[in-house]
Amino acid sequence: MKPLINYLKGDLQVKIEDQGLIQQAFNHTSYVNEKAHKDSLSNERLEFLGDAVLELVVSQYLYHTYPKQAEGHLTRMRAQLVREPSLAYLARQVSFDQYLKLGKGEAESGGRQRESILSDCFEAFLGALYIDQGIEAVKSFLTPILLAPHQTILEITSQDYKTKFQELVQQKGAVQIEYRLLKQEGPPHSQVFTAGLFVENQLQAQGKGKSKKEAEMQAAREALNAYDNGGKP
Amino acid sequence: MKPLINYLKGDLQVKIEDQGLIQQAFNHTSYVNEKAHKDSLSNERLEFLGDAVLELVVSQYLYHTYPKQAEGHLTRMRAQLVREPSLAYLARQVSFDQYLKLGKGEAESGGRQRESILSDCFEAFLGALYIDQGIEAVKSFLTPILLAPHQTILEITSQDYKTKFQELVQQKGAVQIEYRLLKQEGPPHSQVFTAGLFVENQLQAQGKGKSKKEAEMQAAREALNAYDNGGKP
Repeated sequence: MKPLINYLKGDLQVKIEDQGLIQQAFNHTSYVNEKAHKDSLSNERLEFLGDAVLELVVSQYLYHTYPKQAEGHLTRMRAQLVREPSLAYLARQVSFDQYLKLGKGEAESGGRQRESILSDCFEAFLGALYIDQGIEAVKSFLTPILLAPHQTILEITSQDYKTKFQELVQQKGAVQIEYRLLKQEGPPHSQVFTAGLFVENQLQAQGKGKSKKEAEMQAAREALNAYDNGGKP
Repeated sequence: MKPLINYLKGDLQVKIEDQGLIQQAFNHTSYVNEKAHKDSLSNERLEFLGDAVLELVVSQYLYHTYPKQAEGHLTRMRAQLVREPSLAYLARQVSFDQYLKLGKGEAESGGRQRESILSDCFEAFLGALYIDQGIEAVKSFLTPILLAPHQTILEITSQDYKTKFQELVQQKGAVQIEYRLLKQEGPPHSQVFTAGLFVENQLQAQGKGKSKKEAEMQAAREALNAYDNGGKP
């Protein structure tokens, strides 16, 4: 495996001034808690900053890309793009999992695959890049992997919601899950779809979206939320 | 009253290119929903963007101002600075309440004093300023009113928590509320205080902070949170 800085500069075409700061983004707290690395800094403060950097870059992109979309729709897209599973997915896409520095215990218990750790590392890297090179560098880094392909990422993570709901309800055995289109409104260029999620022919949740797919995903998300809040699937 | 753009340029020393965009930040949705203003745009999309701009500017400032502070402490400070009452307070400080455009019904029912409306307008203005002039202009605008005096704002809004808790428990009559220092740890330059909130000599909540004042505020916040989540004060 190439050293981190060579990999970032060469393969990912990232400009870097302060190599130590960039390295810090990959130091999980379990790593710096080990005696041998007690002089290293963890990535937690960088993650605090990177979280805000990511939020702004994604917000600005959506604001300009969807000039006619209402704030509620933009907010939902943003929330889905910056949530943990999406960021963990991106971290793996750019091989950050291989460069993570973990404590021994954390590494042995599968920390390198843990979504929260991967997502935090990704945000910390954005924070470090922002300090080192400014907001435009962060935009350039995120354009090919997150911004330009955001539709695909929304679809992949939507699929996630539907899959998760299915896994959840089928823990107790096979049950019939079906998505049905309940409503389709508005003029051709800005239609709103409403999908219903039916379990054994009982309506469990509804979702709205600009496409059938998105409406179904929102319905699955609703159902998962209800379940998280103590309801039954 | 001066026209908005003159006021912003003259009194607040803000540079402006796109006057229409800046004006949009002051258009509450109730205003654009009126027939006579149906060609105006509301400030909702700008608020979506401004929220993220504010988060980044505050995060970056705290990150650099408190180089030794852990992420958890920075997150708490940020949350308190960007919450609705703080932003409504700032909006009033810069007289945005006078420039808000509201629908008739909203204006008559006291919308000009509503914290959510003021806070949204303040965020929308930051979004518009960011598009018009970039992140440095937003930092310059926020420095004298929010960043430099952030300690004072934290204190004012901390006071808020304590006052709110007091009002809450005393709805049913006079009860004795007391804050006691429970712990004081760490080396002189980075002490951590733990305060306990006692109601009728019963410990209700604890809070930690870099000062006694902050610890007490956090304890009041904890107690309010517990109450919001269905507990009793």
